[in-house]
Amino acid sequence: MYITTWEMDQDLGTGYHQRFLEWLKQAQTDDITVAGALTDAKGDRTKPPSQQEDKDVFLHVVEKRAGGIVVRGAKLMICGVAAANEIFVLPGTAYREEDADCAISFVIPRDIEGLTIVETRHPSDRRDEEDGVDNPVAEGGITQAFLLFEDVFIPNERIFMCGETKYTLPAVSNFIMPYRSAIGGCVAGQGDIKIGAAVLTARANGLSAKVFRDKITKMHINNETTYALGIAAAAKGRKHPSGAWLCDPLIANVNKVYVATLPYETSVLAQDIAGGIAETGCMPSYKDFQSTKYGHLIKKYMTAKYSAETRTRAARLVEWTTIGGGVPGCRAC
Amino acid sequence: MYITTWEMDQDLGTGYHQRFLEWLKQAQTDDITVAGALTDAKGDRTKPPSQQEDKDVFLHVVEKRAGGIVVRGAKLMICGVAAANEIFVLPGTAYREEDADCAISFVIPRDIEGLTIVETRHPSDRRDEEDGVDNPVAEGGITQAFLLFEDVFIPNERIFMCGETKYTLPAVSNFIMPYRSAIGGCVAGQGDIKIGAAVLTARANGLSAKVFRDKITKMHINNETTYALGIAAAAKGRKHPSGAWLCDPLIANVNKVYVATLPYETSVLAQDIAGGIAETGCMPSYKDFQSTKYGHLIKKYMTAKYSAETRTRAARLVEWTTIGGGVPGCRAC
Amino acid sequence: MYITTWEMDQDLGTGYHQRFLEWLKQAQTDDITVAGALTDAKGDRTKPPSQQEDKDVFLHVVEKRAGGIVVRGAKLMICGVAAANEIFVLPGTAYREEDADCAISFVIPRDIEGLTIVETRHPSDRRDEEDGVDNPVAEGGITQAFLLFEDVFIPNERIFMCGETKYTLPAVSNFIMPYRSAIGGCVAGQGDIKIGAAVLTARANGLSAKVFRDKITKMHINNETTYALGIAAAAKGRKHPSGAWLCDPLIANVNKVYVATLPYETSVLAQDIAGGIAETGCMPSYKDFQSTKYGHLIKKYMTAKYSAETRTRAARLVEWTTIGGGVPGCRAC
Amino acid sequence: MYITTWEMDQDLGTGYHQRFLEWLKQAQTDDITVAGALTDAKGDRTKPPSQQEDKDVFLHVVEKRAGGIVVRGAKLMICGVAAANEIFVLPGTAYREEDADCAISFVIPRDIEGLTIVETRHPSDRRDEEDGVDNPVAEGGITQAFLLFEDVFIPNERIFMCGETKYTLPAVSNFIMPYRSAIGGCVAGQGDIKIGAAVLTARANGLSAKVFRDKITKMHINNETTYALGIAAAAKGRKHPSGAWLCDPLIANVNKVYVATLPYETSVLAQDIAGGIAETGCMPSYKDFQSTKYGHLIKKYMTAKYSAETRTRAARLVEWTTIGGGVPGCRAC
Repeated sequence: MYITTWEMDQDLGTGYHQRFLEWLKQAQTDDITVAGALTDAKGDRTKPPSQQEDKDVFLHVVEKRAGGIVVRGAKLMICGVAAANEIFVLPGTAYREEDADCAISFVIPRDIEGLTIVETRHPSDRRDEEDGVDNPVAEGGITQAFLLFEDVFIPNERIFMCGETKYTLPAVSNFIMPYRSAIGGCVAGQGDIKIGAAVLTARANGLSAKVFRDKITKMHINNETTYALGIAAAAKGRKHPSGAWLCDPLIANVNKVYVATLPYETSVLAQDIAGGIAETGCMPSYKDFQSTKYGHLIKKYMTAKYSAETRTRAARLVEWTTIGGGVPGCRAC
Repeated sequence: MYITTWEMDQDLGTGYHQRFLEWLKQAQTDDITVAGALTDAKGDRTKPPSQQEDKDVFLHVVEKRAGGIVVRGAKLMICGVAAANEIFVLPGTAYREEDADCAISFVIPRDIEGLTIVETRHPSDRRDEEDGVDNPVAEGGITQAFLLFEDVFIPNERIFMCGETKYTLPAVSNFIMPYRSAIGGCVAGQGDIKIGAAVLTARANGLSAKVFRDKITKMHINNETTYALGIAAAAKGRKHPSGAWLCDPLIANVNKVYVATLPYETSVLAQDIAGGIAETGCMPSYKDFQSTKYGHLIKKYMTAKYSAETRTRAARLVEWTTIGGGVPGCRAC
Repeated sequence: MYITTWEMDQDLGTGYHQRFLEWLKQAQTDDITVAGALTDAKGDRTKPPSQQEDKDVFLHVVEKRAGGIVVRGAKLMICGVAAANEIFVLPGTAYREEDADCAISFVIPRDIEGLTIVETRHPSDRRDEEDGVDNPVAEGGITQAFLLFEDVFIPNERIFMCGETKYTLPAVSNFIMPYRSAIGGCVAGQGDIKIGAAVLTARANGLSAKVFRDKITKMHINNETTYALGIAAAAKGRKHPSGAWLCDPLIANVNKVYVATLPYETSVLAQDIAGGIAETGCMPSYKDFQSTKYGHLIKKYMTAKYSAETRTRAARLVEWTTIGGGVPGCRAC
Repeated sequence: MYITTWEMDQDLGTGYHQRFLEWLKQAQTDDITVAGALTDAKGDRTKPPSQQEDKDVFLHVVEKRAGGIVVRGAKLMICGVAAANEIFVLPGTAYREEDADCAISFVIPRDIEGLTIVETRHPSDRRDEEDGVDNPVAEGGITQAFLLFEDVFIPNERIFMCGETKYTLPAVSNFIMPYRSAIGGCVAGQGDIKIGAAVLTARANGLSAKVFRDKITKMHINNETTYALGIAAAAKGRKHPSGAWLCDPLIANVNKVYVATLPYETSVLAQDIAGGIAETGCMPSYKDFQSTKYGHLIKKYMTAKYSAETRTRAARLVEWTTIGGGVPGCRAC
């Protein structure tokens, strides 16, 4: 919102930018963690807010008071809320004049009155928790939340947009462009883990990584592509008068296309290298491994070049990053 | 084994084919279900059985008696055992003379003495079981088993190969070629379900399937490709003197390549059409849906053009076929 | 037209089918070669014939006489005319009632009064003719013609459709479906030549084909795919009441997509294996090879494992099939 | 050679760098054009120079004199020689000690005694020259030459490497890395021309560019990818102690892979949009267009939404960039 509030101040003298800067300084002083909340429930995807049967499917102002506003609605699939001190709410999309009630941005503490946070499930979550081989991730892990706003009061000093529909498109765009650039590095890092886990599984099977050289090269290419396009979007960016740096939107958007496709190709290659266990996620349960009756047999037959445990942990990591909880949501960005 | 036992009878006068036919007729008369077991534990993948530290990683004969043989080892990742009356064991690969003990084929009842069957887990299995929206699959579902043979006695009349290493390559090949042809139709059918589930999710979101026309066309193309290559492998096949039909091996092998790649591309397209929920499998739990405190809010915000339940069921089906238990193991075939 | 004229006879009692059969029998007796002419000039692609500024851009009837019709217009990009005894003209697309004048089909001798045939050029044609290394193709080669009809009289006994617009769509479709099936074999054959020429060039360079195994495998896969889909479209076809065999339209259309893409990928692989000379088509002229001053130097430096002549001929064949006159027109089919 | 000569001076005190700088300053003062010559004839690709039957297939020193060296051999496929004042010769690959005679670098005027330059042909070159629609390129155009060195004397002050085999790998690498980065922008520019020419042809046919939106987007993505990876390789580079900038080799090498594949995909898309004429390069000759007998008919039937001339020129440009003389040699780089 840095750029958007700066522009609103320049154009309209709203004072949002000054307010935003004050909050930002305090946030940096207190060294707090902030989650960004963008996506509304959206209801019928073909209709704008004002034509929705249930007006609440877009987060909106239901009451204006002297000291602030009251908002109702929801923000869905919000990452990192469980680990955040505060939640920064952005308009979910560009709005027209008739939907001015939805053109809102503000920041709130996570435990604000009237906000219910429901963490979603993710693939194989119960299995991850119970499975002995994955103990190290018993605490922490993936979080993605539904934020349910039941008439939450936002005080004025926490509001950075309220009805200025003209600025919703830039606000979203200023958020998306660096996001589409930066996520290239994020999925590249995940891709590097896929390479490591796949190669480890192959070695545990007794196979040299050389056998898979072409596939590993292709995985590296995929990783470096999304990373490098993010770098290029930044390098070809420009300084905004507010002092912020704007990524090149064309390259950022090209990166979105790759981020939405290459990680899935990399996953298929990781499964290909790791073999059937990782591909289908089918393997005996940890409980079976521990069985006094036949656990020793499972360990015996899961052993290859390396131990059953090494193979299982490696294959589970490939599974986790390719069809499990670690699959990134890259296509919605 | 039809062709292989026929050839062994022709060449060596083993009597295996006659024995096989007798079993086959009885199996057809009794209308039993049979699971095929091919894959050994394999141990260190770079070594043949005779050089493995643990000889048992390939199923092999440990004792020959007058009335039969005793076998030890394991067959892993075997589908359909839970629903089968009998299990048909094949040699897992081509063997050389020094590994003649592993060149075995036989058929056994599932509850034979000395055989332990351990069903594997699969992605999101616990979630599938507990999750209210998937209740219809509470019984049945995916099965894939580890078969652990602890000195199992196989009577002579159930043995179709025992030491004839020269026939192990044809036996495996005669199994694989029709398999690689037929699996094209299998994944095409799964692909059709992906199309249906993805389009249903899109419609529930309020979006017309027309928006995704190019993607749906690509999914159809992928499905028809593996299906048509299977048909072509059969059409260009030839009749073996035993009476069996042999698929064209070149086309069957080309189909293997597509079966190992196109379904994954189709999955990505399905997720792309269905959107973020299906892509990451992240959505509130069934328990949260039922909450008396905020369950109504989750339903409210999950509602789009169609109800929250419809969307959730549709998205879960996309998830199940693309990153869940329904993912086929296509690359090992 | 076999099926279409049969249906017209069944529905309308036109007598076209009987007439067609008589021509067909005579054509078979005389063992003549026939070129099929489908594509009209089409003018502005967004307009039907009746709205075109120049009515002649679709071949049409300009006069009806007792003994026949007079037609004007053009058929463009028609293959094989130079080697044909007769030309079989089909409606170029489906027409509506107001464009009934264009709904015509007939067969004519190539030297009919009023027809001008202009052969088109093709890539590197002059070079092919002059270049000493390609002497064997001095006669023959690629032909693709513009047929210009300036008020050509077609006698009744040579007409198989004249105004029956309802049958234009089936006529085109009955032509296209077997075409889309059969062209899969055509481009597969060309693809096999690309493999051979590329491998020959590599060997002439001193490189083993093993180095390129993955690329050659991919080329084979591409070739077999279009071939097998054609086979499958036929195998899943059905017998039409007229006695003709109808290909499965879904599989035939899937093949169209592959035929429009895979040969180009195969070409890139062929160039990749053959190296820079084949990729860019840049090499000294035959005249330079013959130079008494420096021709010996060119031969000296073009020599690798095999002679300069072998390398040049092989590379020229790769060039010819990938960026030269041998490039098939696959996307318009 | 800037970095390599600097390092040789640092390590060996050769004085090459000082010599190189003096030449460079003069070259800049005189504002001359320089062509770089890298690729040797190479003979049997599996053998190093010392094992070649004909030693001359790698350019090498045949005599050392007080004032300089005499070299024999060839440099092939050298671009831009026709327009260059001087030719800068680099070692063609990394050499071992036994091939020290080949470890040479020097710069020469184009008209030096003993050097024969033979320009190669390129696809459709004769056609380009004669074809009336392409008259504007009658002068200039593509050049790629064979440089034949018959005992050419190189004076000492023009030599920058002579026998220092250890520096041949860095010399080649320092050339290749910025090349692989920069060529991304080169083929992106060609790709933009393909888009423009394809869209122009489509419009001339009467079709809106909207119809091809997905294909044009894909073309843009391809162009921006090679361009952005070049930018990223530079942005992630580092300053060498000599003052030169070194590109990131990993990203530069990833770009090589894209440069060797994406332009060919872009070409296929351009042909797809432009249609059959551009795909096959088949169209009437300019001479036919001028025919007093039927030239008016060709123009009449080549006319679509726009004139025959516009369509022909546009289609020829697509042809030229996709299967003609404008095809870049991207895979050898």
